[in-house]
Amino acid sequence: MNPLTVSFGISVIALIFAGWLVNWIMKKDEGTDAMKKVAQAIQEGARAFLNRQYRTIGFISLLVAAGLVITYAMIGKSTLGWQTALAFIFGAASSALSGIIGMSIAVRTNVRSAAAAKRGFNQALTLALRGGAVSGVTIVALSLIGIVTLFAIYNYLGYATEAIPALIVGYGFGASLVALFAQLGGGIYTKAADVGADLVGKIEAGIPEDDPRNPAVVADLVGDNVGDCAGRGADLFESTAAENIGAMILGVALFPVFGLAGIFFPLVLRAFGLLASMAGVLFARAKEDDDPMTALNRGYFLTAALATVFLYFITRQMLGNMWFFWCGLTGIITSIAFIYITQYYTEAKYRPVREIAESSQTGHATNIISGYAVGLESTGATVVIISAALLISYYLGLQSGVPGGGLYGTAVATMGMLATAAYILAMDTFGPIVDNGAGIVEMAGEGGQARAIMDKLDSAGNTTKALTKGYAIGSAALAAFLLFSAYLEEVHLRVVDLAKVQVFVGALIGATLVFVFSSLAIRAVSKAAFSIINEVRRQFKEHPGIMRGTEKPDYSKAVDITTRGALRQMILPGLLAVAIPVIVGVTLKAEAEAGLIMVGTITGILMATLMNNSGGAWDNAKKWIEAGHLGGKKSPAHQAAVTGDTVGDPFKDTAGPSLHVLIKLLSTLTLALAPLFL
Amino acid sequence: MNPLTVSFGISVIALIFAGWLVNWIMKKDEGTDAMKKVAQAIQEGARAFLNRQYRTIGFISLLVAAGLVITYAMIGKSTLGWQTALAFIFGAASSALSGIIGMSIAVRTNVRSAAAAKRGFNQALTLALRGGAVSGVTIVALSLIGIVTLFAIYNYLGYATEAIPALIVGYGFGASLVALFAQLGGGIYTKAADVGADLVGKIEAGIPEDDPRNPAVVADLVGDNVGDCAGRGADLFESTAAENIGAMILGVALFPVFGLAGIFFPLVLRAFGLLASMAGVLFARAKEDDDPMTALNRGYFLTAALATVFLYFITRQMLGNMWFFWCGLTGIITSIAFIYITQYYTEAKYRPVREIAESSQTGHATNIISGYAVGLESTGATVVIISAALLISYYLGLQSGVPGGGLYGTAVATMGMLATAAYILAMDTFGPIVDNGAGIVEMAGEGGQARAIMDKLDSAGNTTKALTKGYAIGSAALAAFLLFSAYLEEVHLRVVDLAKVQVFVGALIGATLVFVFSSLAIRAVSKAAFSIINEVRRQFKEHPGIMRGTEKPDYSKAVDITTRGALRQMILPGLLAVAIPVIVGVTLKAEAEAGLIMVGTITGILMATLMNNSGGAWDNAKKWIEAGHLGGKKSPAHQAAVTGDTVGDPFKDTAGPSLHVLIKLLSTLTLALAPLFL
Repeated sequence: MNPLTVSFGISVIALIFAGWLVNWIMKKDEGTDAMKKVAQAIQEGARAFLNRQYRTIGFISLLVAAGLVITYAMIGKSTLGWQTALAFIFGAASSALSGIIGMSIAVRTNVRSAAAAKRGFNQALTLALRGGAVSGVTIVALSLIGIVTLFAIYNYLGYATEAIPALIVGYGFGASLVALFAQLGGGIYTKAADVGADLVGKIEAGIPEDDPRNPAVVADLVGDNVGDCAGRGADLFESTAAENIGAMILGVALFPVFGLAGIFFPLVLRAFGLLASMAGVLFARAKEDDDPMTALNRGYFLTAALATVFLYFITRQMLGNMWFFWCGLTGIITSIAFIYITQYYTEAKYRPVREIAESSQTGHATNIISGYAVGLESTGATVVIISAALLISYYLGLQSGVPGGGLYGTAVATMGMLATAAYILAMDTFGPIVDNGAGIVEMAGEGGQARAIMDKLDSAGNTTKALTKGYAIGSAALAAFLLFSAYLEEVHLRVVDLAKVQVFVGALIGATLVFVFSSLAIRAVSKAAFSIINEVRRQFKEHPGIMRGTEKPDYSKAVDITTRGALRQMILPGLLAVAIPVIVGVTLKAEAEAGLIMVGTITGILMATLMNNSGGAWDNAKKWIEAGHLGGKKSPAHQAAVTGDTVGDPFKDTAGPSLHVLIKLLSTLTLALAPLFL
Repeated sequence: MNPLTVSFGISVIALIFAGWLVNWIMKKDEGTDAMKKVAQAIQEGARAFLNRQYRTIGFISLLVAAGLVITYAMIGKSTLGWQTALAFIFGAASSALSGIIGMSIAVRTNVRSAAAAKRGFNQALTLALRGGAVSGVTIVALSLIGIVTLFAIYNYLGYATEAIPALIVGYGFGASLVALFAQLGGGIYTKAADVGADLVGKIEAGIPEDDPRNPAVVADLVGDNVGDCAGRGADLFESTAAENIGAMILGVALFPVFGLAGIFFPLVLRAFGLLASMAGVLFARAKEDDDPMTALNRGYFLTAALATVFLYFITRQMLGNMWFFWCGLTGIITSIAFIYITQYYTEAKYRPVREIAESSQTGHATNIISGYAVGLESTGATVVIISAALLISYYLGLQSGVPGGGLYGTAVATMGMLATAAYILAMDTFGPIVDNGAGIVEMAGEGGQARAIMDKLDSAGNTTKALTKGYAIGSAALAAFLLFSAYLEEVHLRVVDLAKVQVFVGALIGATLVFVFSSLAIRAVSKAAFSIINEVRRQFKEHPGIMRGTEKPDYSKAVDITTRGALRQMILPGLLAVAIPVIVGVTLKAEAEAGLIMVGTITGILMATLMNNSGGAWDNAKKWIEAGHLGGKKSPAHQAAVTGDTVGDPFKDTAGPSLHVLIKLLSTLTLALAPLFL
């Protein structure tokens, strides 16, 4: 059977599956009127944010597309320019679509999961996971459908099959650009709302978190969705799209060996990974007294096991060289290793978080130093795993005896790592769903069992969010190495010689881009937070009835103002990320550009790991103290731990995740603009 | 005249000049008995620290030397092994010697400068600067004498002149290794003592800074010397030595063009730079109401101007190609640019520090986020300058028409940058001298004019310390690029291909080494601080008379315990810095090792810039608030600013400066062990 038809067919099945899940979810009970009201406010806020955000992103995307057409025309390659620009818009639109679908379902699942918590633990958990699975499955399926469709179109136009992957790079670039702005905008929004709500609510007005009197509380709940669902969704949409394209380009290089099978292998593998994830989602369920993570892990391990089986048969069928099976398995194992490292560095039962909690006893400064040191340290284990994965899969690929097999081996490892992407995404979106669910229960004044269950799920949601970040970095690192190779293939570079002065300068600039980008992303949160702080203060002042509980705060105004603030702040870092590589590529040329993306990627991996893990560790150190250790809530240690948590927020939810996207954007942008750098 | 004789002669003149300065200083008045007593305690503490530290470092150095002999013997190159090991020990001993001389003078100048402050501003300032100049001049002169001597010995043994530079690399490695441990040990000591003294003194016992009842106060004053004098002295000793050797190796490559002149050019230029610095030191003086920085800058600009004139004539005489004059001038201008960038990011009159101070009003967390964002941002301007310096000097060198002239152009730019090194070092050591002087005035209970003058000088000392760190990074960056090229020359590598998987992995590991090393260095401070905290608590408890003022605290015990704690903590990061490059070089070979040192250097430059500048900015934001802004001392903004300052301490005084050294160690170690990686 034609591999394209198989991939397309499975993707369509996946979309039908997602539709079935939506149907199943929507039939569930929405709980009390109070719960419905809160949920509706979140839905409206989310819709308002997405409307405004995607209008801005759409505008930027059109500008970039126009830029593509013009610059390609200037170097006398108009046809290629149009093709790249159309693929770009298609990629951007697909990415936006998957973000919107995933989030629309998440903000409808949250209240149903909360309502289900009144009936029992397993129901609340499966609802939340399946709500997340709608995102996961849709994203991966759409990214496959997009690539297959483009392939079919170019094929219909009569292009040679081997020339097509290079024409699809615009698709990956479009997806990257949308992902960058979605993650930046979402990340800035979510933390600005969080910090703003806390500062005015908890500290100035002295009311608890999620108190309905706080006008920023809905903005805060909306934030969880826009940062984690829409942002990370776009991020992983991009990963799968970019990685598919990169692997296909390498497959072209191996055309003499594998023929078309080498080019289509990544698509087929991804499609079967989707099937494995669907099975995992259906299989995950919990007994009433289970740890939620046990249930979620059960589904994950089934997904990984099924993916391994599929990998085995597909490799045998399509490549006929079993060394590549071992490469793919290396990738699957790598993804599991990443999850364990992240757990070690961010969960309270291990040394690092304990160390931070203990150092909180001597004050704010020692808490910060200790958390930062933990984040720096965590890069060590991360890099050991990445290095091992690259070296092992390269070595195994070499054993295959295929010329250029080493590189293709690393590509297959990346495919292995991303085979479980849909399930990981489901776990990730699970986070904001249960977080929102817990908020809804709190705001609707529910107590008892529902609250206990949602709190337990919320805590598991924090863990899954941390894990998926670790996974996202790992896959970004492997995918990036693949994309470099694809880029070198495109610009016909045999080496990237770091000893040349312009390459070294390119490398230096790439690393610096990561630092300056992080600076802007972190600072954007503070700036955007000021908009919401001022708005909440205004509402409290002009409507004293709010604090007395006699007047309803204007939630949507707070949402709107935060949205504008966040979107304004995402422009500068986003443009920097696009402009610097273009400037370096045009002035210092292709080899320096390669230095930029490679060393930028290395630095980005480390910086993102540092930011994500220190942020996660600070957060859990605070939670551990709040659970009654070292003096518990309101103790001096707790105050110091709150400082760490607040510092960690923009680290782990804005700068860190945006860096994952930046890494891949560097590669896809460079691939799409490669002809300019020659 | 023989260029070696010229360099040697000028170095001897410089040592005589240093001797004359010592004589001039020692004749000055030592002030009241109370001042003498404090000064003596500092001298004893410093001696005790140096004794213990250099014993440890000596032991490590002997181990490494033995390791060199054995490993070289294993690959059948015994003679080379012995030569490298002897050059190594010579370099290590010279570095240690210059650290000891500089510091011995500094701890004798401090009290004399304090006493002079009772007579007037200019006297106190010139005394402190000349005390610093003893360090600066001795360090540069000894590094020249060491290289010239080795050259003479190998020449006497009958080696070909062109083969000699490669035999001297052991000298640079020895200097690097001592510098690493000196800076790490000193940096850990100084901040552990500082944090320890503050935590128990200010916070627990509620007594002011520098209060004589605090047993840790002498340890704190000693710390300023061991971190800044001995540490940075060893750092810049290494810079000049390593850069000389690197430039000479490149000179060998240009032997067909310039003959011996190309090899000796760096030595002669350095020698004349020393003369320029001596003139600058003598010229710097202040009117009674001057800003101290004006006087110091006056001397610096004279030094830079003279260095430019010397550069012009030496280039004309030795190379006969004036394009290299412009390369050197690029370097001199670069050093000035670095000083301005550092000022912008760390002085309270500019935007960044103000921003941090203002964000302190919303709490500890916003202070931290804002300071960290400033540090990240400051890497942008730094890298623009480094990139411009490299590209411009390379381009100018290419214009010379000399084959390989581009690379030699960057080498000459580095020489230009380091031409003013002795003066910069004098300004750097000025810092701890006046810091100590202010402490002595405070502890001896002096008031009035002396105190006002010393406080003014102390504040200028903080600025000079920040500036010299900026300069040290800039010169490390340029010197590193030079050393890579020398390494590639040594291992006969034509390219460093980052697209090879093992080179990419090497690069990844190099960058990670910087992150993990920073983690260990930061954490070492906290751990070492605990030793002194416990000791002070013990003294307070067992001798209640101390707090009543009836009993003298045991200063030397506190010094001794801090010393042991700091030295214990320096071992792990130090060994890591040596072990990782050796392991990667031996397993993944020469090209991967090149990836490691290059990307490690890039990351190191950025991380050191981040740490130094955020630390300096936090410090000055606190001082600005203390000067009465935003509520002044004891306000909530001040408390938040103190948190930032405390976080910044290990950043700017331990991890940051140690990273400068690490960068160069990576190169010199790799050069010295190059035969193992083939």
